[in-house]
Amino acid sequence: MTDPVRVVSLGLGPIGQAAAKLLLQKSTLHLVGAVDVDPAKVGKDLADLLDLGEATGVVVESDLGAALARLQPDAVVHCTSSFLPVVEEQLRTCVQHGANVVSSTEELLVPDHQHAELAQALDEAARAGGATILGTGVNPGFAMDFAAVVASAVTFDVTGVRCTRVVDAATRREPLQRKVGAGLSKSEFHKQLDTGRFGHIGMRESVALVARGLGFAVDKIEHTVEPVLAPEDHKTPFLFVKEGEVAGIRNLGFGYLGKRRVIELDLSMYVGAPDPHDLIELESVPPIQMRFPDGIPGDQATAAILVNSLHGAVACAPGVRTVLEAPVPRIAR
Amino acid sequence: MTDPVRVVSLGLGPIGQAAAKLLLQKSTLHLVGAVDVDPAKVGKDLADLLDLGEATGVVVESDLGAALARLQPDAVVHCTSSFLPVVEEQLRTCVQHGANVVSSTEELLVPDHQHAELAQALDEAARAGGATILGTGVNPGFAMDFAAVVASAVTFDVTGVRCTRVVDAATRREPLQRKVGAGLSKSEFHKQLDTGRFGHIGMRESVALVARGLGFAVDKIEHTVEPVLAPEDHKTPFLFVKEGEVAGIRNLGFGYLGKRRVIELDLSMYVGAPDPHDLIELESVPPIQMRFPDGIPGDQATAAILVNSLHGAVACAPGVRTVLEAPVPRIAR
Repeated sequence: MTDPVRVVSLGLGPIGQAAAKLLLQKSTLHLVGAVDVDPAKVGKDLADLLDLGEATGVVVESDLGAALARLQPDAVVHCTSSFLPVVEEQLRTCVQHGANVVSSTEELLVPDHQHAELAQALDEAARAGGATILGTGVNPGFAMDFAAVVASAVTFDVTGVRCTRVVDAATRREPLQRKVGAGLSKSEFHKQLDTGRFGHIGMRESVALVARGLGFAVDKIEHTVEPVLAPEDHKTPFLFVKEGEVAGIRNLGFGYLGKRRVIELDLSMYVGAPDPHDLIELESVPPIQMRFPDGIPGDQATAAILVNSLHGAVACAPGVRTVLEAPVPRIAR
Repeated sequence: MTDPVRVVSLGLGPIGQAAAKLLLQKSTLHLVGAVDVDPAKVGKDLADLLDLGEATGVVVESDLGAALARLQPDAVVHCTSSFLPVVEEQLRTCVQHGANVVSSTEELLVPDHQHAELAQALDEAARAGGATILGTGVNPGFAMDFAAVVASAVTFDVTGVRCTRVVDAATRREPLQRKVGAGLSKSEFHKQLDTGRFGHIGMRESVALVARGLGFAVDKIEHTVEPVLAPEDHKTPFLFVKEGEVAGIRNLGFGYLGKRRVIELDLSMYVGAPDPHDLIELESVPPIQMRFPDGIPGDQATAAILVNSLHGAVACAPGVRTVLEAPVPRIAR
């Protein structure tokens, strides 16, 4: 038996909390610290946040650098923001202390797609610190991208790919229901659309990961967001959607080779969506379809894949890595 | 652009031929030689074997060591036998010449499962030669094992796994139809059963790979083979199956933790099997199902994953590696 990997949880929102809770159950991973900026959380034992009966001895602190300097963890589970520029300093601090990072930051899935210079600077910092930075998750990170790449392994040739994900937002947490605009009127939705507050973050990165994984040198990546209107009234534990008003969104991502659309990602997240599922269709020889009949539950599964990727991040050569270079993710015990 | 990986094809049976043909279409892989012991193949241009219009310039030769010494390839696609002791010398010769090996040898999927000493000796030879030996394929190697391991990445906990593969043997090549006993009478099947000629090779290795990948320290691995009787007459291009006689086989593999069956692999390959498919069911939190609705076509897909794993084998640290340690397989261009 090798020693457990010593882990600090950074960011204790819903995903970070789920990851921390899971870490407490793993014998090959040892949660040694927790960091969050929220004053309402700082100073509390994790047990209070996670509704655990017994104190964990891990008390939430606010100073990341101090925590890392004291604890010298092998790795950090990072769940603070979707946007790479926002988390740059956090990531730098981690790798400066030699801590490998597994992050839910959506833009980190393919960090050089939207932030080439920043990605390179972080890569240098990670190498200097002898640490790995790895972005992953379920969407982006698995359901609409990585799984399609893995499926391509059994094909002679792939000329196109289509991934469809249907999520019934009624089964998800309130922030997600709000994020998809559920309960808004059409006009309110369109008024707020330009603020960029709607829709799933990471669609561009999913297209970029599929392109890289399947070897499509795409010329152009596009994405669109449109409202899905409710066919009937629908009540969730958090809000009410009136027939004809906004139930959620449909988010499309495309990758083009010249004029040919070789990548189509089709994500529907709305209250009352029927038949939630994930489907990957490779236009390939032989043709391959891969279906997750009930869909992969986003929140739970994202916390899981973050924790399950820790051993891989520790094993990786230092630098900024994508899930294409990291070891095959699999359940950590 | 990096230089293409220079590859020698070793073994030109149906899978080896399909792999060679595929290699000729890849720009990042360059087929530089072909080796087979069959006098009917030696001396021929590959084009003759593969039904290609134009000569390839690659002429089949019989002396592996001489070919490797002359060609100094980066890698070998190895498709000669299912059994590790049979291929030991071939593998040694490859790694002694510094050639990385991707092999269809079923027992090489988890080489130390049935051949611990031999696996260790090969690992030492591979390290000494600075080369990797990697066993892969579709079954074993993907459909009933690796895919389940990948699916586990999105779970908190896995307490059991069931993989079901249904293959309509009528759609497969003649040797497979014969291997599953199609067309035999029940008594003939049972007479020949003890010879070990029936059934799929690698079931034990699939169970072992799942166990290792999911972290089940299984105490016992079992497998069984039984005939599937034809509900009605069935004619294939190669043979005739009479109602009530043997249409093929059902092959079960089990892994136990104490008395609990935590791994169940259920493979049916028979002429006329309805609804061919691959299904992975994780008994997990959250529960995950993954389905390949039409199934993964065994022969084609095996040739594909061998070729697609070459870059990964070249990138791996030297030694005997399993698909759990190799980079994520994905289509090579």
